[in-house]
Amino acid sequence: MLVKRFTNNWESRRSALTTHVPVPTLRRLPLYYRELKRAASQGLTHVSSKTLGERVGVPAVQVRKDMSYLDQKGRPGVGYEAQSLAAHLRDFLGLASEKQAVLVGVGNLGRALALYPGFHAYGLRIVGAFDNDLDKVGQRVGTLEILPVEALGDIVARLQVRVGIITTPADAAQDIADALVAGGIKGIWNFAPCRLAVPDGVFVKDEDLAVALAVLSHVVEQ
Amino acid sequence: MLVKRFTNNWESRRSALTTHVPVPTLRRLPLYYRELKRAASQGLTHVSSKTLGERVGVPAVQVRKDMSYLDQKGRPGVGYEAQSLAAHLRDFLGLASEKQAVLVGVGNLGRALALYPGFHAYGLRIVGAFDNDLDKVGQRVGTLEILPVEALGDIVARLQVRVGIITTPADAAQDIADALVAGGIKGIWNFAPCRLAVPDGVFVKDEDLAVALAVLSHVVEQ
Repeated sequence: MLVKRFTNNWESRRSALTTHVPVPTLRRLPLYYRELKRAASQGLTHVSSKTLGERVGVPAVQVRKDMSYLDQKGRPGVGYEAQSLAAHLRDFLGLASEKQAVLVGVGNLGRALALYPGFHAYGLRIVGAFDNDLDKVGQRVGTLEILPVEALGDIVARLQVRVGIITTPADAAQDIADALVAGGIKGIWNFAPCRLAVPDGVFVKDEDLAVALAVLSHVVEQ
Repeated sequence: MLVKRFTNNWESRRSALTTHVPVPTLRRLPLYYRELKRAASQGLTHVSSKTLGERVGVPAVQVRKDMSYLDQKGRPGVGYEAQSLAAHLRDFLGLASEKQAVLVGVGNLGRALALYPGFHAYGLRIVGAFDNDLDKVGQRVGTLEILPVEALGDIVARLQVRVGIITTPADAAQDIADALVAGGIKGIWNFAPCRLAVPDGVFVKDEDLAVALAVLSHVVEQ
C-alpha cells in the first residue's frame, strides 16, 4: 500500500527538482511559443524581446533572461527569429511528441475540457473519458466513447498515460485520484474543490474555479 | 479614448495596493473557508491549524500567520472554532453579499462556466451570458437567456457588474475586453489564449487551459 501524505503545491515542489529552468520561466515558455507562432502566422520574421514581453506581460529584460536559460539569444535591434525560436521552444517543451491525458467526470466542465480545441497546439490529447454514470457510459463526447470508472486504472496502466484530469464532484475525487495513481499517473489536474492526498512523486495542480473567481471578485470590489 | 497599456499580472499589481493582507494569503482564505465549512458540515466544532494546513497544503505555522492578518487566533490544543471562523472569513471575503459577473462566449467552456454549480457557495452569480452567434442568441443556458454581444457594454453599465469572463476565441477577445471595460468592468477572467490590453485599474486574470496542461505534462514527463 502506498504511504500517502499531503503534497505542497506542485510549483514549490517542482523548484526543488534538478532542472535548471525556474518554474516561473517554465510557465512563460508556452506563452512565448504561443506568441511566436502567432507572429509567424502574421508574416513577421523577427520579434523583439520588448514586443514578446508585452505580449506575455513581462519586461523585455525578463524575456532575455528566460531565453538565456535555453541558450537563445536575439540579435540586437532585430530580435528573435520567430520560426526558429518557436521550433526550439516546441522541442524543449516536448510539444512535438504527443502527450496523453485521461479525464474523469464528464459533466459540463469535463465535456468542455474533452472538447477543448486549444490543447492540440501543445501536443496534448485526451485519450480517455470516464464517468460513473451508467447513462453516460457508452455515449460519446467528441470522438471519445465514455468509459466506466471501473476501467480507469487498467486503461491508464495499459496506455501508460501520465496525466489525469479530475472533473468530478469533490466527494468522488479522492477515490478517482487513488485509481489514477494506482494506474501510474504522475500528474493530476484537479478541478474538484478539494485537496487530494497523493504519494510523493505525484504532482497535483489544483484548479478551483470558484476560488479563482472569488479572489478576482474580492480584488475588484474593494 | 482610453490610454491602454499591457498590464502585469494582477497578482503582482495587487500586492502594490493598500491592503495589508498579502495576495498568497488572500488566495488561501477561500480555501480555508471551504475546509471550515466542510468540517462544520461533518459535525466538527474545532479545527486545528495543523489539520487546516494539511487540507489547504501549507504548514500549520502558515495558517496561524494567515489568520493573524485577520486578528483570528485559535485556542492552543483545541484549534479554531469552525463555524465562527468560517463566518468571519465569509464576511471578510464579502461572500455574504452577492457578486455578479457576465460571461461572453457561450461555447462548450462558456456553457460549463455558466452552469458551474460551485460559484454559488462563494456568493458569485453569472447574471448575463453573451454571444455573437445569432443562432445562439435567444436560446437559454440554464436560466439565462443568451444575449447579443452588441448589448454587452450597455447591460454591464446598467447592472453595474464589475467582473467579466471571456470564453471567446482569441481573435475576438480584445474587442470584448474593450466593450467590458467601456461598460465599467474592473476585473476580467480571460480564458481566451491571448494577452489583453486594458487600462490601468483593470485586473486581468489569464487562464490559458492549454498552457496549464502543457506545463503539467512537461513537469510530469521529464
